[in-house]
Amino acid sequence: MSNFSIGVDLGGTNLRIAAVDEHGQLLEKITLGTKVARGKDHVIHEMTGAIRQLAAKHENAGALQGMGVGVPGIIDLKTGMLRESPNLPGWANTNVRAEIEERLGTRVILENGMAGEFGHITVEPEGVPCPCGNRGCLEQYASATAVVRMAREAINSGRAGALERAASSDPEFSAKAVYNLAIQGDQEAKRIFGRAGRALGIGMADLVNALNLPMYVVGGGVSSAWEAFSPFIFEELRQRSMVYAATAPASLTDGHGASAQVEPGGPTKTIITRALLGSDAGLYGAARLPMTGNS
Amino acid sequence: MSNFSIGVDLGGTNLRIAAVDEHGQLLEKITLGTKVARGKDHVIHEMTGAIRQLAAKHENAGALQGMGVGVPGIIDLKTGMLRESPNLPGWANTNVRAEIEERLGTRVILENGMAGEFGHITVEPEGVPCPCGNRGCLEQYASATAVVRMAREAINSGRAGALERAASSDPEFSAKAVYNLAIQGDQEAKRIFGRAGRALGIGMADLVNALNLPMYVVGGGVSSAWEAFSPFIFEELRQRSMVYAATAPASLTDGHGASAQVEPGGPTKTIITRALLGSDAGLYGAARLPMTGNS
Repeated sequence: MSNFSIGVDLGGTNLRIAAVDEHGQLLEKITLGTKVARGKDHVIHEMTGAIRQLAAKHENAGALQGMGVGVPGIIDLKTGMLRESPNLPGWANTNVRAEIEERLGTRVILENGMAGEFGHITVEPEGVPCPCGNRGCLEQYASATAVVRMAREAINSGRAGALERAASSDPEFSAKAVYNLAIQGDQEAKRIFGRAGRALGIGMADLVNALNLPMYVVGGGVSSAWEAFSPFIFEELRQRSMVYAATAPASLTDGHGASAQVEPGGPTKTIITRALLGSDAGLYGAARLPMTGNS
Repeated sequence: MSNFSIGVDLGGTNLRIAAVDEHGQLLEKITLGTKVARGKDHVIHEMTGAIRQLAAKHENAGALQGMGVGVPGIIDLKTGMLRESPNLPGWANTNVRAEIEERLGTRVILENGMAGEFGHITVEPEGVPCPCGNRGCLEQYASATAVVRMAREAINSGRAGALERAASSDPEFSAKAVYNLAIQGDQEAKRIFGRAGRALGIGMADLVNALNLPMYVVGGGVSSAWEAFSPFIFEELRQRSMVYAATAPASLTDGHGASAQVEPGGPTKTIITRALLGSDAGLYGAARLPMTGNS
């Protein structure tokens, strides 16, 4: 018998709902596409349906402690009002909390990812337009969505035979398919992950130079493809951050074993690593909200 | 009778030494050019000479509490060893603290500005090379040194008559001269401050998007030219940061009076302002070190 909570990670691409026990163990996860085009009522309906399903299924095993929902965008956490969200077009000025609570008949805790929106650092001042209004945001290059877009651009240019075959044989052509080609050595697929890694390296160098924190953790869906893009992160970082070049533990950045090669008494080490929870970090965080006394 | 301390701001362009009393009041400030080309021994000699001069002059008024020295670069504060500094070529692997202490025969406190090196955020991935090893660093566009470089580039291109006349009549042609032309309406001078302000806006949008802090303070020498470049900061920020556009108090960003125009209960305001101490912020900080029990 273990108490549990339910977390929701509402992203522009995926809507994920998980039941997690009080020890942080996953009980069950439901992954749905976020059908943004069908409107917010439809998305909230699917979300609350999945929450109810998980709550009903696990209530025999323990008491439901509450629900946490992570919503992207500019949100007033006091009132629950979502002002604007680049990833959720059509959701501006929606009281997301009220709409969810009304359907469920119970209280939910909102959280948002807009503080710490590393994805909207500018890595290419005149680059690809972003729904947030900026151009050349990191997430236009280093995200699962961006990998698919760059793959489609390569296919349309006629220079990517293997990607074209993969896309035409797979109705759900995704970043995973591009990753599979990249690790098999396909040049275009490798180039795309190189672009993603370099963009991430530029953004990371900004953070290292400006903040000089001891550790940076890369999460999100694209982090599953770590092997394909991380060498490019480190290459850019070494070029663009004197602090990083001077403080990176060689073994960790280059993946050669576990012991750090830094002089004792030297400056603080800078460690870049992938999130152990991969793309589920936000989901676990949301599920944790009811357990930590947040409101 | 008031105790005092001495602060040093060792920059790549200016070497400034100040005596500051325990209430934070400036007693005296000495500004020297940092003669990097004459080597580190010469620079440290000039620095310690000025420290001695201030100590002797003010010791009748109060007791000298100590000295703080701000040094740019990657530095091990425990040992005093400067590993590398983009702004001080030839100083790599110098024990700066030991060299200063040896000459003065007393203890000094080191501090450094490399954590928080906002100046090395990338604002133009393929831009102007920076001594730090990166390309397109913010300080290659938004600093007094950069303003002079851009002015000389404009003069060399033959398109900047007024700047050319100012430079040829003034052997110490500086960012201040470019600023004077900009506020008189000279197009080329205005364009240069526009470039500086836009670069700063890109870098600031990165910080706002990634950190969402309530306030950002612009300091350094170039902040004296706030009127010439700040409108461009705000223009870029509004375009590049949805968070900023949603949370900026209209009155503060646009300079129309003092009261904020934000709805009560709305998201946290984002305020961008100039440092009240202007380019002296680092110098006062260094002088403060002996007063705060740092070591």
